[in-house]
Amino acid sequence: MSELPQGFHGRVTNVGVKDDSDDLTVIHTDTACAVAGVFTKSRFAGPSVTISRQHLARGQARAMVVVSKNANVANGPQGVADAAEVTQRIADLIGCDATEVLIASTGVIGRPYPMDKIRAGIDGLDLFDPPADLDDVARGIMTTDTVQKTSRATIGTGPAVVAGVAKGVGMIEPDMATMIAVVMTDADVTSSDLDTIFRRVVDRTFNCVSVDTDTSTSDTAVIMATGSAGAIDPVEFELALSSVCTDLARQIAADGEGAETLIEVVVDGARDDDQAHRVAKSIVNSPLVKTAVHGADPNWGRVAMAIGKCNDEDLDPDRITIRFGNSEVYPRRLGADDLELLSTYLRGPEVLIHVSLAINSGQATVWGCDLTDGYVRINADYTT
Amino acid sequence: MSELPQGFHGRVTNVGVKDDSDDLTVIHTDTACAVAGVFTKSRFAGPSVTISRQHLARGQARAMVVVSKNANVANGPQGVADAAEVTQRIADLIGCDATEVLIASTGVIGRPYPMDKIRAGIDGLDLFDPPADLDDVARGIMTTDTVQKTSRATIGTGPAVVAGVAKGVGMIEPDMATMIAVVMTDADVTSSDLDTIFRRVVDRTFNCVSVDTDTSTSDTAVIMATGSAGAIDPVEFELALSSVCTDLARQIAADGEGAETLIEVVVDGARDDDQAHRVAKSIVNSPLVKTAVHGADPNWGRVAMAIGKCNDEDLDPDRITIRFGNSEVYPRRLGADDLELLSTYLRGPEVLIHVSLAINSGQATVWGCDLTDGYVRINADYTT
Repeated sequence: MSELPQGFHGRVTNVGVKDDSDDLTVIHTDTACAVAGVFTKSRFAGPSVTISRQHLARGQARAMVVVSKNANVANGPQGVADAAEVTQRIADLIGCDATEVLIASTGVIGRPYPMDKIRAGIDGLDLFDPPADLDDVARGIMTTDTVQKTSRATIGTGPAVVAGVAKGVGMIEPDMATMIAVVMTDADVTSSDLDTIFRRVVDRTFNCVSVDTDTSTSDTAVIMATGSAGAIDPVEFELALSSVCTDLARQIAADGEGAETLIEVVVDGARDDDQAHRVAKSIVNSPLVKTAVHGADPNWGRVAMAIGKCNDEDLDPDRITIRFGNSEVYPRRLGADDLELLSTYLRGPEVLIHVSLAINSGQATVWGCDLTDGYVRINADYTT
Repeated sequence: MSELPQGFHGRVTNVGVKDDSDDLTVIHTDTACAVAGVFTKSRFAGPSVTISRQHLARGQARAMVVVSKNANVANGPQGVADAAEVTQRIADLIGCDATEVLIASTGVIGRPYPMDKIRAGIDGLDLFDPPADLDDVARGIMTTDTVQKTSRATIGTGPAVVAGVAKGVGMIEPDMATMIAVVMTDADVTSSDLDTIFRRVVDRTFNCVSVDTDTSTSDTAVIMATGSAGAIDPVEFELALSSVCTDLARQIAADGEGAETLIEVVVDGARDDDQAHRVAKSIVNSPLVKTAVHGADPNWGRVAMAIGKCNDEDLDPDRITIRFGNSEVYPRRLGADDLELLSTYLRGPEVLIHVSLAINSGQATVWGCDLTDGYVRINADYTT
């Protein structure tokens, strides 16, 4: 089931941005659709982000174009002109206004687009043939991702469909959204409802992923709703959207650069959700916790350290419980046999670290990954 | 010149905390001396920290004992009793009150002291023979440090001496002080002046080091002043102390776990010193910047990313300048030859990243290190 929802078309091609892999992806709709988006808070946000932010103000769009392998960030006025030209050229192909086209871009920072190649690639492009399905679109926006990331949920008996794609493996601690995520739905939702619901969902999903604490300059999450499947129950819609975004967020964490293990951290019993989120992030971002998981080492002392460095007055070592999976490791101490079992658990593809603070009822779930030799090798060798 | 300042004695021995390397270090003075200290803010601070904090309230001490290879953290009431017993036993050897003995401890978290061995080791120990010099003391407090860290400065013609030792390679983003640093001086300074000056200096030195963003549960920095060399000019004293602590801070960064390159980040032109510090820390802690330096990759886009994620409104990409060493890389773009030269610079033992924000006159300098395969290997394999 890799079709796009009703009213959407995809087209993926290579225009030679870096090599001969797909690097230009266009998602477009039959008629103007409701749209909402959230973007990086980075002060070095690129023109793709600033232009899309402006275009989103209308709440309506016909298309989104994604250029991969080059982020077009920190390129000065030329970068802004190039991004604007790409949206204009796509708008010309569709026959709509440039303000109805969103743009996202991802890849190396500080290198201008090869505009000659991009112009030649867009010139005369047939946006319907060959058609791209959800997997094609997910592959088209990849940079160093090792797998394409898609997710799909249905609403009601129609059914209306919510389908999403995402990319991102490094420079991932989204501060509004992950590097690039596009969610498509044929449910009928106003752009204002879409905006409210999407922000709430992004906050609990993409904003809860951290691969390496580095916030990208290109983070972009967009949702487009054609309405082709008709009206839906808003609660059901939020549940479906939440399921798609959680699924994509977990796929991003699992495919983090060099990652071998998905780490899920659940903190409950916090003063409030905000404290739970801060403590959970402190754990999932700790290089010492990440390497302990990589080494399948049940070294819970490092989780205690990561909680301790949050230094809120109400974090009380005498009330805190730490579990790996279902096994309590603090304050209860495990024997040698239990530690052996735990080490086996830590060798699995997913590890749960569960911390109860016993203060109040705040909670949060965040996702990250282990820190491996692979992460260092990928990033020590990336541009040279 | 590895002697301790006048009025100090050192003794280093093995009591079998973990293996047969030195693990018990005692620094003691002829008579009670002025003392000041700063400690971790961690909520999981161990009993060594909490007991030393209490004992410091007097502003006078006779000794400091350091147990290495075991942090005695998260061990409940037993841990507190054990730490208290160690200070009492050292006090008995000296013939002073237990409240005149400070204690610091470093190593694995969550494992009780082997008290039988520690008692046997302290029982009848001669605190004067054989005497330990500055290098011996620095080696005695090491855990996974690869080199001992000492520094020394003189004041006036006496001269009065300021001599310090420090240890720490991982779990290093001090929030008050680094893992363990002990500074000894024979200058005559009151404990109240000592406290004021030491806090100011620690803030600009140890608190500006980050190896891995992980704040230890055991951070302890203590200064002891015997007064044997007589009165000194307080400004000269602060300069000498600053020089010793900066030197030790740089040694810690250079010996960070797996580190091959010391990274110094200077941020100037900030709104205020606090903003400069935050931006500098964001750069020095970015895994993508750390791996770029490791790969000798002049990928300045990652520095831009790290500045951008601070997301202060007044950080303006159009005013910011980024330099590696003396070479401007943003906004000026380097040619291929220049990039080659820069890559050679990045292969050196020390790399300077200099960022000018052009807002106001705030500035900060921080130190860190590259992120290497070695860091991952050391920490994936540490306790198992």
